[in-house]
Amino acid sequence: MVIWRGIGDSETMKTSLKTFSLAVLFLSPLGSAVQAFEVLPSKPPVPAGNPITPAKVELGKQLYFDPRLSKDGTISCNSCHNVMAGGEDNRPNSVGVKGQHGGRSAPTVWNAAFMSVQFWDGRAKSLEDQAKGPLTNPIEMGMENHGLVIERIKKMPEYVAAFKKAFPKESEITIDHVAQAIATYERTLITPGSAFDRYQKGEKKALSPSAVRGMGLVQSVGCTSCHSGPNFAGPMLPEGTLFFQKFPTFPGSKYDAQYSLTKDGGRFEVTKNESDRGMWRVPTWRNVSVTAPYFHNGAVKTLDEAIRVMAKTQLNKELKEDEVKDIQAFLESLTGKFPEQKMPRLPATPGEYVVAD
Amino acid sequence: MVIWRGIGDSETMKTSLKTFSLAVLFLSPLGSAVQAFEVLPSKPPVPAGNPITPAKVELGKQLYFDPRLSKDGTISCNSCHNVMAGGEDNRPNSVGVKGQHGGRSAPTVWNAAFMSVQFWDGRAKSLEDQAKGPLTNPIEMGMENHGLVIERIKKMPEYVAAFKKAFPKESEITIDHVAQAIATYERTLITPGSAFDRYQKGEKKALSPSAVRGMGLVQSVGCTSCHSGPNFAGPMLPEGTLFFQKFPTFPGSKYDAQYSLTKDGGRFEVTKNESDRGMWRVPTWRNVSVTAPYFHNGAVKTLDEAIRVMAKTQLNKELKEDEVKDIQAFLESLTGKFPEQKMPRLPATPGEYVVAD
Repeated sequence: MVIWRGIGDSETMKTSLKTFSLAVLFLSPLGSAVQAFEVLPSKPPVPAGNPITPAKVELGKQLYFDPRLSKDGTISCNSCHNVMAGGEDNRPNSVGVKGQHGGRSAPTVWNAAFMSVQFWDGRAKSLEDQAKGPLTNPIEMGMENHGLVIERIKKMPEYVAAFKKAFPKESEITIDHVAQAIATYERTLITPGSAFDRYQKGEKKALSPSAVRGMGLVQSVGCTSCHSGPNFAGPMLPEGTLFFQKFPTFPGSKYDAQYSLTKDGGRFEVTKNESDRGMWRVPTWRNVSVTAPYFHNGAVKTLDEAIRVMAKTQLNKELKEDEVKDIQAFLESLTGKFPEQKMPRLPATPGEYVVAD
Repeated sequence: MVIWRGIGDSETMKTSLKTFSLAVLFLSPLGSAVQAFEVLPSKPPVPAGNPITPAKVELGKQLYFDPRLSKDGTISCNSCHNVMAGGEDNRPNSVGVKGQHGGRSAPTVWNAAFMSVQFWDGRAKSLEDQAKGPLTNPIEMGMENHGLVIERIKKMPEYVAAFKKAFPKESEITIDHVAQAIATYERTLITPGSAFDRYQKGEKKALSPSAVRGMGLVQSVGCTSCHSGPNFAGPMLPEGTLFFQKFPTFPGSKYDAQYSLTKDGGRFEVTKNESDRGMWRVPTWRNVSVTAPYFHNGAVKTLDEAIRVMAKTQLNKELKEDEVKDIQAFLESLTGKFPEQKMPRLPATPGEYVVAD
């Protein structure tokens, strides 16, 4: 069931992304894999070129929450990736400037630092790369170009000072600094301490009997062949490593039409290679019970239905209702502790108007 | 210049709003009125029927930040009244669900608890009344009715528990509880400690010489005949007391056309009485330097231009450029200390989808 894209992928060649062999991880027979479950590390991987500093985290948080980084001052990163909630917007698809709808459901920003590529179609190889995209996407934040983002930021003296503090050796504010600061803040958005993690660490009462049954089922049914690793989104891979799965793997079920599962080509929309049609990044299970609705198009409204659809489309299995309930109980046990956060103060626009109407 | 509406106003009769005599406050001769300046109290007035409790503040903060209280899950109170910034959205007018624009610029929520009526046209007599309006305004949060707001809230068990804690004696969640909680949170949004307030308390170095000159000018020019009281928005009046001013008081200047000052009838749009045409609530000067653009329609982009326009339209005076600069320096001294706030955690929608697309 595991489909590993990387070697031979034209974009891999182009961008020199790292490759990785998965085979060894999937040799253990199903059912004996409880040991394979991994707790969520409290710290994510950090790229050598962008170390975490308090000044960078604070600046990144300001930028993340600042709607003035969008053309008309209505949309911030947090609008679609709401960190006061499950890290997304609880909508089928997101709404950008001028009420425009995107075609896909916002992925959660919580624990995104553990993903080796970003976006549903993996078109960004790092959090830094990802952060630049929505700013100039005409249906998201709608800025004409990154230069205008920088121009607007420079009009706010408190931002200029904050960039100086976060990047003391740099004389200019660039879009790379903006992206590095946002990515650094995002690397603090980790949710350890879920009931599942506590159970794994020995607190056996942390899970209900139903959740424990569900934990067995996700292995025996086969879900964890893709939803593996500490983020239940595939194994931990070096940043930039492409990792996709086919969805639906078993096409032709009633769900394809009912939830328009094949309308969006996924990775194909990036590469235009027919072999990439229907290839998607595996989404995390962490906090999945608070991120309805589900799938790339947000077409499935409830978690129990998402479980039914996945079993059928990915494993060609029809689950009994008590199995669905147990798996749901297990997935609910993956909701972590969201760290307490101070609200950022957004730099003032002293006596001046910086957004466009 | 002071125009006091209240006695004889048909809505006053209808709603039994309190009346108040202003005359005594404006008898002191201009120029000798330094003593009339008031520091911002650290606590606002609180209505007897809605005492402040920590549980109510916390619930109110959750509701204030929750975009799921809007039809399509995109707009929260904070979208237009951003408490991470100057308490509004730095836009000419606000944007609601489906990218719809309102006709007026969002007033700041900071220190709104000191205003005796709410909205530019004073159509709500309390913060509680105000909080209900945008929820069902079709171009703001767009819910069909308050019943649907309550229905959606009840789908989130953490909200049900939070209402129980905030209103322990009540068995049902009602829209009045929603409004009371939001208003209670808003009563914590006070910004004492501005340079002006520190100066008033004896810290004479808190103001620059230019700001001190500006402080004299706003009195001698006549601005403080309306921008009086601790909030520089008129005298402190009992909640529900109507207090409006005519704008422009001196019509016919070039600014009327340049900034479309008379297109919106203000209070007239509520009462349809011709005598109310062009009557507006006096906006606060507190934090005004961080709330560009200016006026009810947000047509004026910078603070210096706002000062010129007001002098001409309200006092028929043309200021010299150094006078404008000094007044601006004084207004900038009114930016207070924004209290540190923890981000709320928004109640989960467990495995379920509650907003409409």
